[in-house]
Amino acid sequence: MAEFAKERDWDQFHSPRNLLLALVGEVGELSEIFQWRGEVPKGLPDWKEEEKQHLGEELSDVLLYLVRLSDICGIDLGKAALRKVDLNAIKYPVSKTNLNNEGSQSH
Amino acid sequence: MAEFAKERDWDQFHSPRNLLLALVGEVGELSEIFQWRGEVPKGLPDWKEEEKQHLGEELSDVLLYLVRLSDICGIDLGKAALRKVDLNAIKYPVSKTNLNNEGSQSH
Amino acid sequence: MAEFAKERDWDQFHSPRNLLLALVGEVGELSEIFQWRGEVPKGLPDWKEEEKQHLGEELSDVLLYLVRLSDICGIDLGKAALRKVDLNAIKYPVSKTNLNNEGSQSH
Amino acid sequence: MAEFAKERDWDQFHSPRNLLLALVGEVGELSEIFQWRGEVPKGLPDWKEEEKQHLGEELSDVLLYLVRLSDICGIDLGKAALRKVDLNAIKYPVSKTNLNNEGSQSH
Repeated sequence: MAEFAKERDWDQFHSPRNLLLALVGEVGELSEIFQWRGEVPKGLPDWKEEEKQHLGEELSDVLLYLVRLSDICGIDLGKAALRKVDLNAIKYPVSKTNLNNEGSQSH
Repeated sequence: MAEFAKERDWDQFHSPRNLLLALVGEVGELSEIFQWRGEVPKGLPDWKEEEKQHLGEELSDVLLYLVRLSDICGIDLGKAALRKVDLNAIKYPVSKTNLNNEGSQSH
Repeated sequence: MAEFAKERDWDQFHSPRNLLLALVGEVGELSEIFQWRGEVPKGLPDWKEEEKQHLGEELSDVLLYLVRLSDICGIDLGKAALRKVDLNAIKYPVSKTNLNNEGSQSH
Repeated sequence: MAEFAKERDWDQFHSPRNLLLALVGEVGELSEIFQWRGEVPKGLPDWKEEEKQHLGEELSDVLLYLVRLSDICGIDLGKAALRKVDLNAIKYPVSKTNLNNEGSQSH
């Protein structure tokens, strides 16, 4: 992403808050895909191939801006995410959540 | 909004979560207007008339879905907002926040 | 809202993009209310009174930042919203949408 | 993420739209970190270590829900993102954007 931006002279636009708002814009486009559909089953069995491709593109746009935002902020996203999974594992231990499903609703 | 939707046979699409996702979509479009601009001064002195009109349209789209979502959820938004202002006035009393600007940063 | 902010010396924080990000934050809190519920029927018949009150507060937070953002940008939100409804009425005329429900899905 | 959810009996909550709204909630929390700061320089030189750690956690929460949402929708996010980068490279060729910075503003 850094190389992609540099080659296009986009570094000047990629400040943290610019990228954050671009991310919000992409989350908006992702939401538009789901907005008039009501509940959607896992695996999207009834979606056309082009609809799934469009969805893949919007999910990717969110990911690409998230990666770029992290990098511009000096955050190692991969490392941070693995650490967060560890923290989540402590916060929601397996045994407790299995015994208490109500609790898991507010995870 | 209720009449507008009924006349167009849109009630079938206007479930709470559909409207919420439509609202998120509009917030995304609002963010796109501001995403590559860096900090923007109050009153938008350098914006063209057509840019301000576009902004007004996106702000309106957020408002219209917010009003519709509230109505569909059985919430009186006007009443709730006035109540929230009263709650905020108690949470952030004038004297305290004036003496302690640091505190106001986290309002 | 302008008076509320002025009394608390918050004008210094209320730039357009600060308010926009605060609005996004409130939309996030609104989404959290609906996130683990699956589809929710109109009128929220099974919600407790305190849940509906909480919902009213989050809807209000979105409204209050939207009003403040519009004001800081020099946009008359009430006027813009009425104009947008008129534009929507032209874009989605009653007769056409009634005859063609497919079209209404993409409104 | 799939294993993590299964161990905690969370599959029942992880429908596409539930996860999407959870993602929106996390983007809201990410925005709250930046909301009252005005423009922020790259690398976040003035942020405390604990603030950067908090930021890393919110960026991670967005990533983790994005990965889980993609998986639940049957989308290979890694593959989709690489494809999207290729599409972006075609849409914004290096030579053209370097000669025309105005165009790059609307990327």
